Amino acid sequence: MSEPEARGPHRLHEQLEAVVELLRRQKLVEQVAHGQHGAHQDLVDALVHRQNQAELQRHLDALHPADIARLLEALPLDDRLAVWQLVKADRDGEILLEVSDAVRESLIADMDDREILAAAGSLDADELADLVEDLPTEVLPELMASLDAQQRERVQSALSYEDDQVGALMDFEMVTIREDVSLETVLRYLRRFDELPEQTDKLFVVNHENLLTGVLPLHWLLVNPPEKMVSEVMAPDVNTFHPDDKAAEVAQAFERYDLVTAPVVDASGHLIGRITVDAMLDVIREKGESEALSRGGLREEEDIFASVWASVRNRWSWLAINLVTAFVASRVIGLFEGSIQKLVALATLMPIVAGIGGNSGNQTITMIVRALALGQIAPDSARRLWRKELAVALLNGLIWGGVIGAVAWMLYGHLALGLVMTAAMTLNLLLAAFAGVGIPMLMMRFGRDPALGSSVMITAMTDSGGFFIFLGLATLFLM
Amino acid sequence: MSEPEARGPHRLHEQLEAVVELLRRQKLVEQVAHGQHGAHQDLVDALVHRQNQAELQRHLDALHPADIARLLEALPLDDRLAVWQLVKADRDGEILLEVSDAVRESLIADMDDREILAAAGSLDADELADLVEDLPTEVLPELMASLDAQQRERVQSALSYEDDQVGALMDFEMVTIREDVSLETVLRYLRRFDELPEQTDKLFVVNHENLLTGVLPLHWLLVNPPEKMVSEVMAPDVNTFHPDDKAAEVAQAFERYDLVTAPVVDASGHLIGRITVDAMLDVIREKGESEALSRGGLREEEDIFASVWASVRNRWSWLAINLVTAFVASRVIGLFEGSIQKLVALATLMPIVAGIGGNSGNQTITMIVRALALGQIAPDSARRLWRKELAVALLNGLIWGGVIGAVAWMLYGHLALGLVMTAAMTLNLLLAAFAGVGIPMLMMRFGRDPALGSSVMITAMTDSGGFFIFLGLATLFLM
Repeated sequence: MSEPEARGPHRLHEQLEAVVELLRRQKLVEQVAHGQHGAHQDLVDALVHRQNQAELQRHLDALHPADIARLLEALPLDDRLAVWQLVKADRDGEILLEVSDAVRESLIADMDDREILAAAGSLDADELADLVEDLPTEVLPELMASLDAQQRERVQSALSYEDDQVGALMDFEMVTIREDVSLETVLRYLRRFDELPEQTDKLFVVNHENLLTGVLPLHWLLVNPPEKMVSEVMAPDVNTFHPDDKAAEVAQAFERYDLVTAPVVDASGHLIGRITVDAMLDVIREKGESEALSRGGLREEEDIFASVWASVRNRWSWLAINLVTAFVASRVIGLFEGSIQKLVALATLMPIVAGIGGNSGNQTITMIVRALALGQIAPDSARRLWRKELAVALLNGLIWGGVIGAVAWMLYGHLALGLVMTAAMTLNLLLAAFAGVGIPMLMMRFGRDPALGSSVMITAMTDSGGFFIFLGLATLFLM
Repeated sequence: MSEPEARGPHRLHEQLEAVVELLRRQKLVEQVAHGQHGAHQDLVDALVHRQNQAELQRHLDALHPADIARLLEALPLDDRLAVWQLVKADRDGEILLEVSDAVRESLIADMDDREILAAAGSLDADELADLVEDLPTEVLPELMASLDAQQRERVQSALSYEDDQVGALMDFEMVTIREDVSLETVLRYLRRFDELPEQTDKLFVVNHENLLTGVLPLHWLLVNPPEKMVSEVMAPDVNTFHPDDKAAEVAQAFERYDLVTAPVVDASGHLIGRITVDAMLDVIREKGESEALSRGGLREEEDIFASVWASVRNRWSWLAINLVTAFVASRVIGLFEGSIQKLVALATLMPIVAGIGGNSGNQTITMIVRALALGQIAPDSARRLWRKELAVALLNGLIWGGVIGAVAWMLYGHLALGLVMTAAMTLNLLLAAFAGVGIPMLMMRFGRDPALGSSVMITAMTDSGGFFIFLGLATLFLM
C-alpha cells in the first residue's frame, strides 16, 4: 500500500478536467511560441511550459495507476501520448494492465523495446501473461530470456489456457503453512513477511507433497487461542477450483459463497495457484460488457478516439451479416410484388408485423439466455418453457394483433385486410416464441455461447418470416 | 462457517438433477397410492414416500443456502413449493435473500405470518431492509415491534435510501479500534470474538466521537511487531464512501482499487457502516443484467416458470412502445403509397435502408453508453465524437450503400433506383450516427440512465427516418 490512495469515484471526473485544462494551457503556450519569435519570449514560454509540465506531473503522481488508466482512455490520442510520456517511466507496467485492449495497443505503439522490457520487468508472471499477447513479437525472446525458470514456466502455463479459464486468471502469490504447527508459530512466521499478498484472507495448508489439506482463514487465526494447532482450526473442505474451470462459473461461485480468495489445485490435488475476487469482479463486468458489445454489434471494445478506419473495421462484420439478412428479407418481399402492386397497403403494414415479431422474439431469447447462464433450465423443462412462451405469444398476438388489425380495418376500410393482419401478427409471434426458446437451447447443445449472435438470428427469422406470413396470407385470401 | 461447504460450480447441475429425480419418484408413489386402495399397499407407499422424503431432506441439508436458492429458481412452481416446505423451517431467511425477486414472491406467498416473522428474525438489519418491501404489509407492524431500537433505526435508515445507493447496501458489522493502543492489545481484543464479521479485511480506527481516523488492514496487524501502536501502522487516508453515493460508482472503485471492504461515513466523517465486495459483485452483475433485460424489453427479471399472465404483463410495456413506433413508421410509408404503386421495388428495398440504419445506430449508441458509464467522455469531446462517427457513417454508407445500390441496379435494371438507394443508405447512416451520439449524451445531461431506452429511440428514428429518406428521394427523383 505504498501507492497513493485513491479517493472515491466522484473524483475521477474532476481529475480528468484538471488534466485536460493543464494540457490545453500547454498547447496554448506552444501556439503562442510558434507565433512569436523573440528570444526573450521563447524563454518566458519555456518557463511557463516547464511550470505547467511540473504541475501536470504532480497531478499524475498523486493518482492511482487505475485512475491514470481511466484518464488515458478518456483522452484523445495526442493528449493521451503526452500524458503517457509523463507517467510511463515509473508505473507503466501496472497502467498497461489496467487500460482496455484498444488503448493498450495505442500506448505500446508509442514505446520502444527498452521501455517495453522495463515495463514487463516490474510485473508478476500472471500479469505478464495478460500482457504478452499485445506486445510486439520481436521483444518476446529477450523478455522470456530475462525471466527465471519458475517465472517462465508460470507465464507459459498461464498462456496455455484460454482467456476464460481459471488457469489464465490465477496468480501465484500464496502463503502456505503446515497443519502440524501452532497458531502462535503461524503468527510468528507471518511477522517475517514485509507484506502479505493483496487480498489474502486465508492461508493455504499443504502437506510435504504440496497437497492442499485445508485452509486457515485469517479470522480464525485471530480469534482462536495461539496455542491451538492449525489442524484443529483449519477448514478441511474448501471451495477449490481447477485451472481448466470456466471463469464465469467460478465467478458465480465467488458471488454465491462470498469468497475473497480460493485455492487452485491440479487434478491430483496439488496447490498450484489462487484466484482472487478482484479477478472475478473483472470477469463479471467483462461478461456483461462483452454481451452488450456483441448485442450491439461491436466486435470488441472500441477506443472512443480510435481512427475512423479502425472503427469501420470493428463494425464491419456485424453490418455485413445484417446486410445479408436484410437482403434475404427483401427478396422475400420481392416474391410478392404482384400482390403489393394490387394492394399497396400491404407495403405500409408489413414492417409492423416483422418489427413486433422481432421484439417479442428478443424478449423470449433474453429470458432464456439468462436462465441458461444461471443453470436454471433442467433438461426436461424445455417442453414446459415452449408451452409457456407459445401461450404468451398467442395471447399477445390476439391482443396486439387484434388492436393493429382493427386500426388497419379502420384506416383502409377493408375488414379482410384487418383479419389477415391479426392472423399474421399472431403467427409471427408464435414463430418468434418457438425460435426464441429453440435457438439458445440449440446453441447451448452445440457448445456455443447462446448470448452471442442469437439476437441477430431471431431478428432475421422474424423479419423474413413476418414478411412471408403476412404477404403470403394476403395473397391467399385477399387477391 | 458452520454452514455446509459448497463444492464448486460444476456440482449445481448434478444437484438439480438429483433433486428432480427424487421429486419425480415421490410423485410416482403418490400416483400409485391414488390408484390402489388396499390398506397394506397404503402402508408400503407411505414407507417409500417417507424414505424418499428423508433422502431429499438429506440432500437439501447438505446444500449451501445460495445453492438451494438456485435450485428453487430452477424448479417449476409445484416442485419448488415441495422443496421449500422441506427447507423453510431452518434457513428460510438466508434463502429468501438469495433468490430472485420474482421467485421470492412465489415463496413468500406460500408462508404464513408466523413463518415470515421467524424467517425475518434470523436476519441482520441490512438484510431485513432488503426483504421488507417484498413482505405482506400486514406483518410489518409486528415485525418492526420485534426489533430493538438500534435495529429498527438501521432498518429505517436503509429503507430511506434508493436501491442503488450505498446507504441501502451497507451493513453494520464493523470491528472498530482506537489508535492509542498497541497491536498486541488489538490481537488480544480480537481473541474475545467468537468470529469476525464475514469478509473483514481491515479494522476501522475511530476516536471517542466515532470519527473515522484510519483503517488497519489485518495484513498489517499480522506482519508488524505487536508492540507497535495502531497509530504508527494504520493508513490515515482511505477510500471512504457516503451513504448517498451511487452503488455503481462505488463498485467501480472497488474494482479499480481491489477493495474487499470500505468504511461508510456520514457528512461529518462519523463511521456509520461498511460496504463489502460481495455486495459490489451483486451490483456489477445486476447492472449488466438489468441492462440486458431492458435492452431485451423485459421490465424486470422473470421467473422462468411464471404464469403466462405474469409474463405477458412483464413484456407488455415494451411491446406497446414498439407497436407505437412501428405504427408511426408505417404511417410514414403511408405518405408515399402513390410512389410505391408506381414503382413496387421501393417496397421491396425500403426495409434494407431502415434495418441497416438501425444496426449502425445501435453500434454507435453501445459504444457511447459504455464510454459514458466509464466516465471517458469529457465535456469537450462531444464534437470530436460526432465528427468521428459521422465520418464512419459516411464511409459505411458509401461502401455498403454502394454495394446494395449496385445490386438494386442489377436486379431491377434501373440505375437511378440504385443511386437513390445508395444516397438513402448514406443519409440514414449519417442520421443514425448523429442520433447515436446525441441521444445518450442528451439523456445523460437530463440525469437519466443512457443505457435504458436509447436503443428503442434510435431504432424508431432510423426506421421512420429511413423510410422517409428513401421514399422521399425516390418520389423526388424517380417519379
